[in-house]
Amino acid sequence: MSEYRAPLRDMRFVMEELCGLEQISQLPGCEDATPDVVQAILEEGGKFATEVLSPLNRVGDQEGCRWEDGRVITPSGWKTAYQQFREAGWTAVACDPEYGGQGLPKLVSTAVMELWKSANMAFSLCPMLTQGAIEALMLCGTDRQKQLYLPKMVSGEWTGTMNLTEPQAGSDLSAVRTRAEPIGDGRFKLFGQKIFITYGEHEMSDNIVHLVLARLPDAPEGVKGISLFVVPKYLVNEDGSLGARNDVRCVSIEHKLGIHASPTCVLAFGDQGGAIGELVGEPNKGLQYMFIMMNEARFAVGMEGLALAERAYQQALAYAQERIQGFEVGQKSDERVPIIKHPDVRRMLLRIKAHTEAMRAMNYHVAAAFDLARHHPDEKVRQRSQAYVELMIPVVKGWCTERAVEMTSLNIQVHGGMGFVEETGAAQHFRDARITPIYEGTTAIQANDLIGRKIARNGGMVAQGLAQEMEKTVVELRATGDAALGRIATRLEAGIAALRKGVEFIVANYQSNPKSAHASSVPLLELFGIVCGGWHMARAALVAHQRLSQGDTADPRFYQGKRDTARFYADHILPHATALAETVVDGAEVTVAFTDEAFALGM
Amino acid sequence: MSEYRAPLRDMRFVMEELCGLEQISQLPGCEDATPDVVQAILEEGGKFATEVLSPLNRVGDQEGCRWEDGRVITPSGWKTAYQQFREAGWTAVACDPEYGGQGLPKLVSTAVMELWKSANMAFSLCPMLTQGAIEALMLCGTDRQKQLYLPKMVSGEWTGTMNLTEPQAGSDLSAVRTRAEPIGDGRFKLFGQKIFITYGEHEMSDNIVHLVLARLPDAPEGVKGISLFVVPKYLVNEDGSLGARNDVRCVSIEHKLGIHASPTCVLAFGDQGGAIGELVGEPNKGLQYMFIMMNEARFAVGMEGLALAERAYQQALAYAQERIQGFEVGQKSDERVPIIKHPDVRRMLLRIKAHTEAMRAMNYHVAAAFDLARHHPDEKVRQRSQAYVELMIPVVKGWCTERAVEMTSLNIQVHGGMGFVEETGAAQHFRDARITPIYEGTTAIQANDLIGRKIARNGGMVAQGLAQEMEKTVVELRATGDAALGRIATRLEAGIAALRKGVEFIVANYQSNPKSAHASSVPLLELFGIVCGGWHMARAALVAHQRLSQGDTADPRFYQGKRDTARFYADHILPHATALAETVVDGAEVTVAFTDEAFALGM
Repeated sequence: MSEYRAPLRDMRFVMEELCGLEQISQLPGCEDATPDVVQAILEEGGKFATEVLSPLNRVGDQEGCRWEDGRVITPSGWKTAYQQFREAGWTAVACDPEYGGQGLPKLVSTAVMELWKSANMAFSLCPMLTQGAIEALMLCGTDRQKQLYLPKMVSGEWTGTMNLTEPQAGSDLSAVRTRAEPIGDGRFKLFGQKIFITYGEHEMSDNIVHLVLARLPDAPEGVKGISLFVVPKYLVNEDGSLGARNDVRCVSIEHKLGIHASPTCVLAFGDQGGAIGELVGEPNKGLQYMFIMMNEARFAVGMEGLALAERAYQQALAYAQERIQGFEVGQKSDERVPIIKHPDVRRMLLRIKAHTEAMRAMNYHVAAAFDLARHHPDEKVRQRSQAYVELMIPVVKGWCTERAVEMTSLNIQVHGGMGFVEETGAAQHFRDARITPIYEGTTAIQANDLIGRKIARNGGMVAQGLAQEMEKTVVELRATGDAALGRIATRLEAGIAALRKGVEFIVANYQSNPKSAHASSVPLLELFGIVCGGWHMARAALVAHQRLSQGDTADPRFYQGKRDTARFYADHILPHATALAETVVDGAEVTVAFTDEAFALGM
Repeated sequence: MSEYRAPLRDMRFVMEELCGLEQISQLPGCEDATPDVVQAILEEGGKFATEVLSPLNRVGDQEGCRWEDGRVITPSGWKTAYQQFREAGWTAVACDPEYGGQGLPKLVSTAVMELWKSANMAFSLCPMLTQGAIEALMLCGTDRQKQLYLPKMVSGEWTGTMNLTEPQAGSDLSAVRTRAEPIGDGRFKLFGQKIFITYGEHEMSDNIVHLVLARLPDAPEGVKGISLFVVPKYLVNEDGSLGARNDVRCVSIEHKLGIHASPTCVLAFGDQGGAIGELVGEPNKGLQYMFIMMNEARFAVGMEGLALAERAYQQALAYAQERIQGFEVGQKSDERVPIIKHPDVRRMLLRIKAHTEAMRAMNYHVAAAFDLARHHPDEKVRQRSQAYVELMIPVVKGWCTERAVEMTSLNIQVHGGMGFVEETGAAQHFRDARITPIYEGTTAIQANDLIGRKIARNGGMVAQGLAQEMEKTVVELRATGDAALGRIATRLEAGIAALRKGVEFIVANYQSNPKSAHASSVPLLELFGIVCGGWHMARAALVAHQRLSQGDTADPRFYQGKRDTARFYADHILPHATALAETVVDGAEVTVAFTDEAFALGM
């Protein structure tokens, strides 16, 4: 089994030539992130990922976490690796310098995040959840709360969790029942049970800062009665030192299909008198805060889709290069060849490669827009960028994660029978990938968000604006006069037309025919992802063409490969956009009309 | 977790109204299989599947098999279940009455097989492999061999295995190295190691009859030097009683992603002086025999695709009916609803349902053609049916198994977070399904077979003939004047056109441009599967329409559901045929041209 290697060359290409790293590094507050500095960071991160995290990935899968009387024991080597991780400063990359963070742009922290997620997804969830908790406190904590919690969380000494789900409240958070009762000194006692809490208990850090959704005694029913609380595992004294053990306990951990090393905890709050917590932000606004933060969390899970596809690609490629089997098609030689010579193995490798590179370009492009939305001096650019980020988040999350299931499956297929044997390691990525279209909102939840808040609410304006941007690329491709680029242009154009058609259907039906709009939401999301991916690959092909035709590169093979990968994407993936548009427009009617009883009529 | 229920209603519909069970039961030798008898068999089988096999499925997954010093211990309850299974006569269903079999038509044994595979796929592999070994001996064993082995194998007292794979010989069986040395009395000593041997060792039966590919001392290199041997675990005396333990030993079993209860063995032949075996059939024709038998084995694995999809559907449906979450879209009610009310859950359920029913119709239709090819008095019908069977085998195997991976994945998605927890049982089907596109020839191997032996060899004639058959259905759909059927016709017509285009590409390129033909082979196979599935669903819609418009059914809801499911298939699945045809025609060039080095250029 090969260890992960950071795809630094493609990362650099995407950051510098597709996402304007140079421009980002000139934004106020981003000045440290010059291309050279970023390269050095990624090289260092890549080394850490390869040498420390990647070798622990399989150990983590095999050993998993153990639950013992309320304690959770992480796999061998996990705790040491986490210590090295935080000592090297990796927990601080994306954080505010005021609390000890490095304040690097989102574009850079995104690339860094990809490293961890490719090398060891189960490990990466701990800093990812901590990051989410940090952002929640940044967003709505008091100064005192920030001072008390953030420096330790940024340094990684303490980790964080997000406590949303309850047995009856999964996708529907309005059903949350955990209660918070005031105890008079401004604090609260929490009572209730939370499930699916990632890294809800472990011993890698000195403290765990739980952010918990709960209801105040006088709270209204439903979504408008949920508040956010901070409930540390160990109470924190005003001087920052640790106090008593709080009344929150890990009752059990789940036995899961994948990410075995990431403890998925059932947490009981208040079984012994009440878990002490503080309100974060205003009462009854918990869900609203969550929605703001979800952009980041969903983006991060979308990055898992990319990261697992990259890992799957590397593994499939290594196996295809070394496994000798059969003879080359159409050659008269009786010499057996590595399976990479077989056309269908090449097709599978290119399918993973094309998707991986498309996802990287798409996701980093959204990351760069995060930076523009936050730091650009021109308010119009900030607004436009923010709208683009918000439109794209459900696509990044929904499409990349669904793709990861397919890409990790293809990796198994390239391995043949060996792929089904756990020892090979291919199966782990497939198992790990399967959670990504579920957590942080299932694909259907992403699709709801896409068609509702992101499309219908603005009459499809933002999405159609994006389509218009894409059409400029079609014109640019054609302007080169290059035949291969012209073919990419034709397919991209058809894809954009399909996307427009899909968006129009949603806009026309969202109010008048909401069930139909929702029945078409996931096909639309998939269509959206395919076309966005195709757009970015087309942009990449354009850049590659320019570099090659101007002869201004020392690295022509990279650009040729990029152009060919873009062509593969156009010929193999983009045609499905048209098919999906047919489904979006015509396929909802029967889904909605099908009677409940008819589902069981075959028995 | 729900137990499996036999989908008897749909099975009956497919057998009687789409596959001509009545006609089959009039073929010489098939007279016992009247629709009433078949119904009784399926009801009995369904009971056994629900009551005995289905409850053991999870136990088998959790416990798996254990290897202890050469012995393999099957999970709790396995041995008893197997005994019940064979005592009830289920091992004999498809076998020749001359050796104790029931000689039921393939159409019927196929439906019976579906039951076992849905209820407990890991269990079903034991009788399936035995069936393969029975067929090999039927095909080319001597009368003495048949008398010696077949009655005990048909009764299930002995089981069988197929020993093909070796570490260096997976998809490429020409690389087989196991040797067979004559010992003078007409028998041979075998030496070598075989891997991935399903049920290669276990204690459910008194003996295990291994069929083994090996090379004679003077054998030519490559595929033309491989012979077939029968090597029993216990030597068999001429009176049929068991003799000495043979020198074949299970060295280890694999730790696999799924089908944990099916022992996947490494078998060592001849470590202690040589495993005694007899030649089966003529020397050096082993691979040829394998190819003849593979039709049956590949068909059976294709049935696993259908069977797992059915099981996934039942589980997803049960969960969707009982899980309460969220509110109905577009309703003002504040009452929470079962998730089956949510449009995207309906879409997912219909996606599984439509694929499952399409696969059932397609596979049973091929099974009926097996019967026609074997028993029909008219030689032309026999030949035509045989050509159809051979064309369809790679499609049944390749398409249904790839779909099973998606369908079992959708079942997890319907379950949300619970789907990722092993306890729920959804994850097991997903893990089990992943082997099906690999064993008995990967999807690429099926696709090679499809484009080479099944399409190019006859200049695409058989496939184009099938397309012509399908076009008749388009005409019949239109002739009804029904709007819904008209829409199905339009999409089917586009699908057929895509199929014709794809077949033409293969025919045009197979000789002159073999790498391109092979690069397009899997997309063509997928296209083929989609269109065949669409054709059978269209036929089903037509039958349903007729029954409904003639008012000659007591069961109108079933037929309405069938028609709507066909429409879903047409709107959601058929449109991708056109997209795939674009890939088949245009997508090979870049796959072939991509340089080996370019695969690694992103690092």
